[in-house]
Amino acid sequence: DFIYSLENDVKPSLGTSDEALAKFIERGIINWGSTRELVEKGMMFVKQARSPETSNRLCLLLEGAPTAGTSAMAAYLAKNSDFPFIKVINSREMVGFMESSKCLRINKIFDDAYRSELSCIFMNDLEHLMGYSPIGPRYQSLVLDAMYSLLSASPPKGRKLLVICTSKRRSVLEELGLLSVFTAVIRVPYITHQEDIKLVLDESQALTPDEIDAIMDHICHGKVFVGLKKLLGLLDTMRVMKGVESRKRVASFVNLLEDEGVYTPEL
Amino acid sequence: DFIYSLENDVKPSLGTSDEALAKFIERGIINWGSTRELVEKGMMFVKQARSPETSNRLCLLLEGAPTAGTSAMAAYLAKNSDFPFIKVINSREMVGFMESSKCLRINKIFDDAYRSELSCIFMNDLEHLMGYSPIGPRYQSLVLDAMYSLLSASPPKGRKLLVICTSKRRSVLEELGLLSVFTAVIRVPYITHQEDIKLVLDESQALTPDEIDAIMDHICHGKVFVGLKKLLGLLDTMRVMKGVESRKRVASFVNLLEDEGVYTPEL
Amino acid sequence: DFIYSLENDVKPSLGTSDEALAKFIERGIINWGSTRELVEKGMMFVKQARSPETSNRLCLLLEGAPTAGTSAMAAYLAKNSDFPFIKVINSREMVGFMESSKCLRINKIFDDAYRSELSCIFMNDLEHLMGYSPIGPRYQSLVLDAMYSLLSASPPKGRKLLVICTSKRRSVLEELGLLSVFTAVIRVPYITHQEDIKLVLDESQALTPDEIDAIMDHICHGKVFVGLKKLLGLLDTMRVMKGVESRKRVASFVNLLEDEGVYTPEL
Amino acid sequence: DFIYSLENDVKPSLGTSDEALAKFIERGIINWGSTRELVEKGMMFVKQARSPETSNRLCLLLEGAPTAGTSAMAAYLAKNSDFPFIKVINSREMVGFMESSKCLRINKIFDDAYRSELSCIFMNDLEHLMGYSPIGPRYQSLVLDAMYSLLSASPPKGRKLLVICTSKRRSVLEELGLLSVFTAVIRVPYITHQEDIKLVLDESQALTPDEIDAIMDHICHGKVFVGLKKLLGLLDTMRVMKGVESRKRVASFVNLLEDEGVYTPEL
Amino acid sequence: DFIYSLENDVKPSLGTSDEALAKFIERGIINWGSTRELVEKGMMFVKQARSPETSNRLCLLLEGAPTAGTSAMAAYLAKNSDFPFIKVINSREMVGFMESSKCLRINKIFDDAYRSELSCIFMNDLEHLMGYSPIGPRYQSLVLDAMYSLLSASPPKGRKLLVICTSKRRSVLEELGLLSVFTAVIRVPYITHQEDIKLVLDESQALTPDEIDAIMDHICHGKVFVGLKKLLGLLDTMRVMKGVESRKRVASFVNLLEDEGVYTPEL
Amino acid sequence: DFIYSLENDVKPSLGTSDEALAKFIERGIINWGSTRELVEKGMMFVKQARSPETSNRLCLLLEGAPTAGTSAMAAYLAKNSDFPFIKVINSREMVGFMESSKCLRINKIFDDAYRSELSCIFMNDLEHLMGYSPIGPRYQSLVLDAMYSLLSASPPKGRKLLVICTSKRRSVLEELGLLSVFTAVIRVPYITHQEDIKLVLDESQALTPDEIDAIMDHICHGKVFVGLKKLLGLLDTMRVMKGVESRKRVASFVNLLEDEGVYTPEL
Ligand SMILES: Nc1ncnc2c1ncn2[C@@H]1O[C@H](COP(=O)(O)OP(=O)(O)OP(=O)(O)O)[C@@H](O)[C@H]1O
Ligand SMILES: Nc1ncnc2c1ncn2[C@@H]1O[C@H](COP(=O)(O)OP(=O)(O)OP(=O)(O)O)[C@@H](O)[C@H]1O
Ligand SMILES: Nc1ncnc2c1ncn2[C@@H]1O[C@H](COP(=O)(O)OP(=O)(O)OP(=O)(O)O)[C@@H](O)[C@H]1O
Ligand SMILES: Nc1ncnc2c1ncn2[C@@H]1O[C@H](COP(=O)(O)OP(=O)(O)OP(=O)(O)O)[C@@H](O)[C@H]1O
Ligand SMILES: Nc1ncnc2c1ncn2[C@@H]1O[C@H](COP(=O)(O)OP(=O)(O)OP(=O)(O)O)[C@@H](O)[C@H]1O
Ligand SMILES: Nc1ncnc2c1ncn2[C@@H]1O[C@H](COP(=O)(O)OP(=O)(O)OP(=O)(O)O)[C@@H](O)[C@H]1O
Ligand SMILES: [Mg+2]
Ligand SMILES: [Mg+2]
Ligand SMILES: [Mg+2]
Ligand SMILES: [Mg+2]
Ligand SMILES: [Mg+2]
Ligand SMILES: [Mg+2]
Repeated sequence: DFIYSLENDVKPSLGTSDEALAKFIERGIINWGSTRELVEKGMMFVKQARSPETSNRLCLLLEGAPTAGTSAMAAYLAKNSDFPFIKVINSREMVGFMESSKCLRINKIFDDAYRSELSCIFMNDLEHLMGYSPIGPRYQSLVLDAMYSLLSASPPKGRKLLVICTSKRRSVLEELGLLSVFTAVIRVPYITHQEDIKLVLDESQALTPDEIDAIMDHICHGKVFVGLKKLLGLLDTMRVMKGVESRKRVASFVNLLEDEGVYTPEL
Repeated sequence: DFIYSLENDVKPSLGTSDEALAKFIERGIINWGSTRELVEKGMMFVKQARSPETSNRLCLLLEGAPTAGTSAMAAYLAKNSDFPFIKVINSREMVGFMESSKCLRINKIFDDAYRSELSCIFMNDLEHLMGYSPIGPRYQSLVLDAMYSLLSASPPKGRKLLVICTSKRRSVLEELGLLSVFTAVIRVPYITHQEDIKLVLDESQALTPDEIDAIMDHICHGKVFVGLKKLLGLLDTMRVMKGVESRKRVASFVNLLEDEGVYTPEL
Repeated sequence: DFIYSLENDVKPSLGTSDEALAKFIERGIINWGSTRELVEKGMMFVKQARSPETSNRLCLLLEGAPTAGTSAMAAYLAKNSDFPFIKVINSREMVGFMESSKCLRINKIFDDAYRSELSCIFMNDLEHLMGYSPIGPRYQSLVLDAMYSLLSASPPKGRKLLVICTSKRRSVLEELGLLSVFTAVIRVPYITHQEDIKLVLDESQALTPDEIDAIMDHICHGKVFVGLKKLLGLLDTMRVMKGVESRKRVASFVNLLEDEGVYTPEL
Repeated sequence: DFIYSLENDVKPSLGTSDEALAKFIERGIINWGSTRELVEKGMMFVKQARSPETSNRLCLLLEGAPTAGTSAMAAYLAKNSDFPFIKVINSREMVGFMESSKCLRINKIFDDAYRSELSCIFMNDLEHLMGYSPIGPRYQSLVLDAMYSLLSASPPKGRKLLVICTSKRRSVLEELGLLSVFTAVIRVPYITHQEDIKLVLDESQALTPDEIDAIMDHICHGKVFVGLKKLLGLLDTMRVMKGVESRKRVASFVNLLEDEGVYTPEL
Repeated sequence: DFIYSLENDVKPSLGTSDEALAKFIERGIINWGSTRELVEKGMMFVKQARSPETSNRLCLLLEGAPTAGTSAMAAYLAKNSDFPFIKVINSREMVGFMESSKCLRINKIFDDAYRSELSCIFMNDLEHLMGYSPIGPRYQSLVLDAMYSLLSASPPKGRKLLVICTSKRRSVLEELGLLSVFTAVIRVPYITHQEDIKLVLDESQALTPDEIDAIMDHICHGKVFVGLKKLLGLLDTMRVMKGVESRKRVASFVNLLEDEGVYTPEL
Repeated sequence: DFIYSLENDVKPSLGTSDEALAKFIERGIINWGSTRELVEKGMMFVKQARSPETSNRLCLLLEGAPTAGTSAMAAYLAKNSDFPFIKVINSREMVGFMESSKCLRINKIFDDAYRSELSCIFMNDLEHLMGYSPIGPRYQSLVLDAMYSLLSASPPKGRKLLVICTSKRRSVLEELGLLSVFTAVIRVPYITHQEDIKLVLDESQALTPDEIDAIMDHICHGKVFVGLKKLLGLLDTMRVMKGVESRKRVASFVNLLEDEGVYTPEL
């Protein structure tokens, strides 16, 4: 798999937040249909961020519906940026923080980044970081303001900064006026092609080749639409059905796909 | 009763929150129509959570209308998970807490859980925990954010975490974007079959067999729709009517069922 | 009067909040039409709460429009419950409290109650306790959450708890999801029968028998609709009109009834 | 003037808040059309509040549009209640207070009142006291709750309490559910009769008798509608026009009445 | 100019806030059409406030659209009131104050004023003082309440108080119920007559007489509508165009008037 | 380039915030179509602010859509104002500040400015400074009030103050009533002429002259509409495509222009 090898070439220098990033790529990167293009596009912006001829601030947004694999893809780019300073901004570490404590922590990370000539900051799930919730709607204004200030400020002279963010609600960021601070926005899609489903089933090793063929036969006359993470989750259920006979496993997986709205048979 | 025996086989190791769980199962588990299927489905996910081949985080949601028996069923699964570390998150212990204290307490429990290789957390009534109320609507954003962060974060490498939650308002969780963090959602239904009513009346021992037959004769030409907990509550009223003559007891119970909307005679 | 005698049989043990309850029954209990049935129904739930065979938590709600006599009736039940531990939760003692202080105080009372084998808590006017007001609408979420937690939690094993509450806005409690925590709800009605009016006038001793007959003659061709407390208040005005001649007193009382909307002449 | 003499008969005992009350009656009480009836009605409730046969708590509300003279009338009743303990609750002394400080202060006054056998509390402008403002609308919930608790709680046994309040927005109090705590509500009207206007002009001594006649001739073919306080204010303007010739003064006063909407000529 | 001379006759005693007032009258008072009437009307109320026969509290509101010259006119009246105690309430000195600090400061000034027999308080821009903003709308309730309390309370016996306020949004004050505390309201108008424009151009000395004539010729067939302060601002732009040839100056000023909506040519 | 030379003539005295301003002009000033007129107009107001004959306070607003180049243009004017005291108010330095801390900091800068005879303050992005966000909408009232107070207050006698601000949402400032404090408002436009696009491409040196000609040929039959900053950003992407063959670069740049909505081909 070409992407894994690419990853293996890279030896991140000391000081990066390798472990934190690894948590976002729990299941590795499966190279299905859209993956190569996403990685290439992303790596081009990483290259642009490094280039001394360009603006010294580059903010990249990866956005996709829930379970699309957005966070893993973004973490993957950060990990492979080969930047000497990489930092992860993680809501898990700020549970129960007041708005201003959150701002201080995030601000601190940007200040630290400014000390390095080349630095990369990974902020997962911007809306969640600012406590966005659609009932109200609510969000933490101080955090939003901090993000806006930090993402739109140029680093000190001679420093280059790459910020990689993810979002599940592009339209919210747009409404909040945050979208315009990004140099580029990349969409992470759902799986919609049958062959991509097959590819993931193959790679997951949760089903035997025969089972996979049987499943593909069942679903070939309909539409599939699913986030990669969701699909991997459903395959986990198959893993615990080890002892069960093959035909049952196939049937129950097809059922699962229909129940969860992954697969819609054509009328 | 097969379920009770299953329960009796299990000897929870030290350190679990046995007493706290027991409070949610005050009246035991009566094995009516849907119970077996619910328990089997639930135990399958418990098994999946234990399996080393699957994701190291599994969040299970049991949701049902008020009095359906949702909390008891969820507590029952947690109790029978046979996990070495089981912890109950209980709103009763956080009365009057500020949002951030609540977050700290919940966060602490997750941090504790991460220390164990296999751990199970039981969070009853998510909406109530986050102070949700439909007038406004209101809820505590900090707590919602904490839940989201904690439920969607992977535990440290080598640790497996099972979180079992309950909810009375699935649609609210969906609107808040919290539903997508759950690996699976199980619905706990109301009783709708006459035979299930009979079964519960039999098991409750609040009425004599003759009384039960008389009651079933009365209600057989209509529809029943009731949460198990509610039905058990109505039977309690019968228990204090000990001295009264049988015919009166039957009549007043049938009245009760109609008044409370449990039983609707067919037109 | 049978109810007073019933009351006099009861010798509440030490430690009850007798004085606090007495304040709610300033004018005693007049035995008009609905009173006996209300008392019987209420005392049945008190009995159910004591019974060792039933759930160890019973929450009873008395609800009625303003001035219906709801608080007096509820206090009367609590007083006659003959429970060894009785506690009154009183908004008058919490004027100016912050939400969390209120919660602490209420929580404390429940914790105290858990120490007794049989305990009864009287909470008057739930909406007012949680600072509910229809303009907004507003209410104190922390207090609402505390009530919900405390009313729905089971007391420790071997303890039995009876909570008697009153409300003027049943629909608000329903909307807030608080109604479902009550085992039973009893409605306290307004006076709508002429004979009940007469009965109250007789008992009040604010008018002479001749005056009462004259008044009843005047109002017999219309509709009456009034809360008992309001009616007693109007009779107070008669008490200060001592020196006045009878015919004038009758006329002014009938006027008062019409002005205040108590009596509507038939068209 | 009969009312002044009535006032002069009264010798308030020490400890009353005489000065504070006097400030509300800066211009004395002019005995125009509605005044006598208002005073009589009010004094009857004062008498009822004193009577040992009646409820030991009586809350009286005087309500009227701005400048009607509501505050003066209420203060007048309080002053003439001849109660040994009289206390004024004054928003002027609570400028910039936080809600809870306000509640504490008000609560303190009620607690003090409970120490006296007969006590009277005067609370001017309830809506203003609770920070009510129609844009929002806004009000201080804690203060509203405190008022509700304090006005509806019975004083200790053997104590009698009279509370006299004023309001400019009866409908707001009603919506807030505060109106039902009052034993009685008295409306203070605007001046609508020509003869009442004349009476006030006469008493004010700001104009000569001839000027008054000329003015009355001008306005007799139209409608008048004005609060007494406003009318007294307009007369103040006349007082500084001392040197001016009579005809001009009459003309400019009539103009003033029309400009300020006091007088509407009939079409 | 008669008004300047009037101003020069006045020698304010020590202790007044002369400098603060002077800042509001940076450009002096030009005696255009409406000025004399405004000053006379205003000074009449100042006289009324001094008079011992009238109410001991007089609140005067000057209101006008932005740039009308409202603040200067109000400051001018305060300055010429010849009151021994004059105090200016200035939002510039309360930047960043919390609501309650603001209230304290304002309250302090009123308390100080009560010590003097005759005192005058100048409060500029009431809406701004209470943080009013139409988006929301928002305002500081504590400050509004403080204003209401302070403006409507009578000073101690024997003291006379004159409060002069300005506003740009009379309708907001009305909605907030603040308008009724004012004894009188004076409107400061925009300039609408050609001759008034000419008068201001003449007095400003920013243009030569010939230039002024040329400008008046240009604009005589249209409508003018402008606040005095705005007009003075536009003339400032002319002052820096010193070197430029006359015809160009005239053309660019006429353009300016049209661009800024000051002058609308008749169709 | 005439503008650069103008800039080079200026030797800012010590104490100015040169570095802070320089950050806003990261890419220098390219002299495209509208630039000269903007600079001239702006410098005229700078001159007016210096003049001793004019008002001693001049507030200038530059407003433009996102990426128009508004901030750079405003910073350029401040830099070239040749004022001895220049101060930059920067949201980046106030991340996580509470409203009142922000106000204090801004207030401090104005107070400092008052000490200098001639001072210039540069406030970038007013809406962002006051935490404005359209969802709600929200903004920090204290900061808005502080801005209003500070921008509309006259400096002490003998001091002259020039404030240069930028905004992306002129309509919001208008609604908030902040627009009327500005002496003048200048609009920074988007690029809409083909020749201006060419000029920027030429100056940027990201493409060869041949490539530029090819691009211009492609887009000459459509409409262009783009902010200068955005255009420079897209050119950065070209810089990293160094090795690629010319025809591909041209094609991909034209694609970029269409994808980003910069260029719309005529139908
Ligand atoms: N090609 C791929 N792209 C993205 N993720 C992949 C790919 N192949 C495998 N994965 C795995 O799929 C999972 C994707 O999960 P991820 O958290 O990125 O999803 P998400 O869209 O961010 O979901 P959420 O809605 O929870 O934020 C990861 O565990 C990752 O290791
Ligand atoms: N098969 C069963 N499933 C669930 N509960 C059962 C069953 N059999 C008996 N019970 C008893 O019924 C009661 C169910 O109450 P539980 O608190 O679970 O209801 P709930 O739906 O959570 O109600 P609430 O709306 O108050 O949250 C428990 O006391 C439990 O012991
Ligand atoms: N049968 C009765 N039921 C209830 N109250 C009675 C009865 N007979 C007499 N009373 C007297 O009537 C009064 C009822 O007042 P209570 O405070 O209970 O009314 P309420 O409906 O709670 O009014 P509120 O709307 O103020 O809460 C009490 O003083 C009580 O002593
Ligand atoms: N018969 C009267 N009734 C009421 N007030 C009178 C009467 N005769 C004279 N007054 C004087 O009229 C004034 C009435 O003012 P008061 O403050 O009571 O009016 P208000 O309606 O409360 O006005 P606001 O709307 O400001 O609250 C007082 O100064 C009082 O002395
Ligand atoms: N006749 C006049 N009336 C008012 N102001 C005048 C007059 N003649 C000259 N001026 C000058 O015009 C300016 C008016 O500004 P002022 O601040 O009063 O306007 P404003 O309406 O309060 O504006 P803003 O909308 O900013 O509050 C002052 O500098 C004042 O010296
Ligand atoms: N003529 C010009 N006008 C403005 N900016 C120019 C010009 N020529 C080159 N630039 C460069 O273009 C960039 C404009 O960015 P600037 O931050 O001013 O845009 P903006 O409109 O404020 O964007 P934002 O929406 O992010 O606030 C700066 O780097 C500046 O050096
Ligand atoms: Mg994600
Ligand atoms: Mg439950
Ligand atoms: Mg009650
Ligand atoms: Mg009043
Ligand atoms: Mg002004
Ligand atoms: Mg900008």
